[in-house]
Amino acid sequence: MMYRVDGAKNKHIASPVTKPRVVIIGAGFGGLKAALGLGKAPVELTVIDRNNHHVFQPLLYQVATAALSPADISAPIRHILRKQKNTTVLMTEVTGVDLEQQLVFTANRSVPYDYLVVATGASHSYFGHDEWAPYAPGLKSLVDATSLRRKVLLAFEAAEMEPDPEKRQALLTFVLIGAGPTGVEMAGAIAELAHAALAGDFRHIDPRSARIILVEALPRILPAFPEALAQKARVALNHLGVEVRTSSPVEDVTSDEVIIGGKALPAKTVIWTAGVAASPAGQWFDAQTDRAGRVKVQEDLTLSDYPNVFVIGDTASVMQDGKPLPGVAPVAMQEGRYVASAITQRVTGKGDVQPFHYHNKGNLATVGRSFGIADLGWLRLTGFLGWIFWLAVHIVYLIGFRNRVLVLVQWAWAYLTFQRGARLITFDTKAKLTAKELLEKVV
Amino acid sequence: MMYRVDGAKNKHIASPVTKPRVVIIGAGFGGLKAALGLGKAPVELTVIDRNNHHVFQPLLYQVATAALSPADISAPIRHILRKQKNTTVLMTEVTGVDLEQQLVFTANRSVPYDYLVVATGASHSYFGHDEWAPYAPGLKSLVDATSLRRKVLLAFEAAEMEPDPEKRQALLTFVLIGAGPTGVEMAGAIAELAHAALAGDFRHIDPRSARIILVEALPRILPAFPEALAQKARVALNHLGVEVRTSSPVEDVTSDEVIIGGKALPAKTVIWTAGVAASPAGQWFDAQTDRAGRVKVQEDLTLSDYPNVFVIGDTASVMQDGKPLPGVAPVAMQEGRYVASAITQRVTGKGDVQPFHYHNKGNLATVGRSFGIADLGWLRLTGFLGWIFWLAVHIVYLIGFRNRVLVLVQWAWAYLTFQRGARLITFDTKAKLTAKELLEKVV
Repeated sequence: MMYRVDGAKNKHIASPVTKPRVVIIGAGFGGLKAALGLGKAPVELTVIDRNNHHVFQPLLYQVATAALSPADISAPIRHILRKQKNTTVLMTEVTGVDLEQQLVFTANRSVPYDYLVVATGASHSYFGHDEWAPYAPGLKSLVDATSLRRKVLLAFEAAEMEPDPEKRQALLTFVLIGAGPTGVEMAGAIAELAHAALAGDFRHIDPRSARIILVEALPRILPAFPEALAQKARVALNHLGVEVRTSSPVEDVTSDEVIIGGKALPAKTVIWTAGVAASPAGQWFDAQTDRAGRVKVQEDLTLSDYPNVFVIGDTASVMQDGKPLPGVAPVAMQEGRYVASAITQRVTGKGDVQPFHYHNKGNLATVGRSFGIADLGWLRLTGFLGWIFWLAVHIVYLIGFRNRVLVLVQWAWAYLTFQRGARLITFDTKAKLTAKELLEKVV
Repeated sequence: MMYRVDGAKNKHIASPVTKPRVVIIGAGFGGLKAALGLGKAPVELTVIDRNNHHVFQPLLYQVATAALSPADISAPIRHILRKQKNTTVLMTEVTGVDLEQQLVFTANRSVPYDYLVVATGASHSYFGHDEWAPYAPGLKSLVDATSLRRKVLLAFEAAEMEPDPEKRQALLTFVLIGAGPTGVEMAGAIAELAHAALAGDFRHIDPRSARIILVEALPRILPAFPEALAQKARVALNHLGVEVRTSSPVEDVTSDEVIIGGKALPAKTVIWTAGVAASPAGQWFDAQTDRAGRVKVQEDLTLSDYPNVFVIGDTASVMQDGKPLPGVAPVAMQEGRYVASAITQRVTGKGDVQPFHYHNKGNLATVGRSFGIADLGWLRLTGFLGWIFWLAVHIVYLIGFRNRVLVLVQWAWAYLTFQRGARLITFDTKAKLTAKELLEKVV
């Protein structure tokens, strides 16, 4: 029988354990799949996340554009895992990892492990221009989504009160930098918000005069899709009134404008969807990272020299067929499932651990309320059919029966009425002081 | 033809107007009813609110206890009023009123009026103990509701990680001060959250061991209800596991405990539902106010000496049959409707303005998921029937078809599963820095 060797900060009493301890850091798509895969394994599992909830990231843009509420696309982690008797969930912030002593340090205590799974995700990368961050926020968390929602809705409110026509137009200009799926979906959603949902609600401005501009440095949008599908998406964006500017690298972003090709584009709302940077997990290990800060891992997703430490999802740089795997949910989920079975195999001694192999089932994107594109390799869908397929896949993968029903009800309502239900401008705790200040800041 | 005399700060050009200008400050129950009542009147109406949304306050406690999302109980003001061609909505903060010049000052400009309706609502009153405010927050706004939700859910998370049994019990002790409808409904909701929704989700604590204590200075709960109904509600609270302490004035509230009758009750979560204070509108006018800061008004809800200035809702102190009217939604709504018709009568010269008279249709309260009390004067309901009645009334008065459907779906789901869907701990914009700090603050 072994005994738990707890870290110095741990106030819990040492207790006899007979099962290997697995610690998973982060309950995004990768970490959660790993945790669910280990639910019946003969291990003692601890899942650590700084939030109490898992977020369905592919629908974050719908929160940012007032179509869904934050709770609709999230679920409490400990509730998802409540039936796994071998699992403890801790809501706390990880501050570091000691690979030699096999300890995870948190704000409250240190947690020992026999196997570690690092799935801490990514944040935005401004490609060396971090000074743009305050003017061009990104979309990676619920906090990002609700503050973008506030920013977008406040721009219309401020425009309604702005007597100067030039300033008014700058308030009604929305620039999205980066034409991957998030940029494309967000541009379509803001266009619909301005041109349909808000259309009749103002007196001094016409929200339909809003400009939505999607800017991309590469010569085409949606580089992960076949050219023909991307072209159809571009046409659909134009139909919604989105201006698409490809081969247009951004040179500068300030509080008032975006500089492209030496020309200034006055815009008060700029949204960054161009680049991601891995979370600082790489620094905990002093490990080799790629340009985006993602940790380079072995074929079995472990750190070299540390075969009991797995790194997955957006935190990991995994090469396949000479190319790095993209930072998308399906990759993270397949990696999570793989790690769960790899740990089970090693703990039970049953089966050989094979190298990880990502199976790409396809790519999906949507443009507005009834146009989608789907590339499944053997099948390509566009238009309404593509949108229905996108909708079905997202509903199926959304966690929680209640969330599925609520999201379907709201999508049906939005589809029939062109309205947005969550048009809520909320402020931080000091609301009463900052409402005015925030509005002035936008103006 | 008259010309608009705009204030110095107004950058808009003076324009010819032929219709009297009505300005409503605040779009709560009173202000919104007044605005809707003036939709077809021959006036030029401006509605000013510092938020973009109207909030259905009677369901705020359901947001605070993770049953509903903020957007479910709110609707954009300008969307509600979009069809009124005579109406402009401004989202801005009012900073003062000049009764002589007939101007409303806001952060952005000054707005002239011929008739003014002040419906700015109320905040909490700590009866001279403002030092309790940080430890015993109240529930008047969506920001209050989401920060209470965070506080309540974080208490369980912190308890799960707290090794010291005494500190753990303090984290699992919830004290509600004030046994009016809000205190009673909130106590029932927290009891159900702890005893049902969270029951199986933790490993180191049993949420069912949480203590929920409802404290009231008066000898009984729900003073607005007949004694017999209140007694039944008290029994229902006991069934849910709520400890009710009447005749127990609170002597002190600190970060760790509540002092009642000289005895310290260790509790990390204290919620204030005992008293309200009117918004500072009274100070704008230098008018006579009652003890709670509410402006004393004439029989027709106008300020004495200023017959074109109406004060309604929680901002006004209206005497009827020798008693002040209570600060509840039906009073505010009837006052709003009255003011709309009084202004219409005076503008059109048709009809005589009669004094305002409040018609009390009844009182409702609910205790948990299937017990309600209703006192309609001619009819009293308790138990399941009272709850169904409560539910029907709240659904009918909730604004927006979408909100009604969503709230019904979520109530049905909660009723069938005992679960709470909006168990979301969200932080302010600086989430990544404050998550840890906030948790430590709670511990």
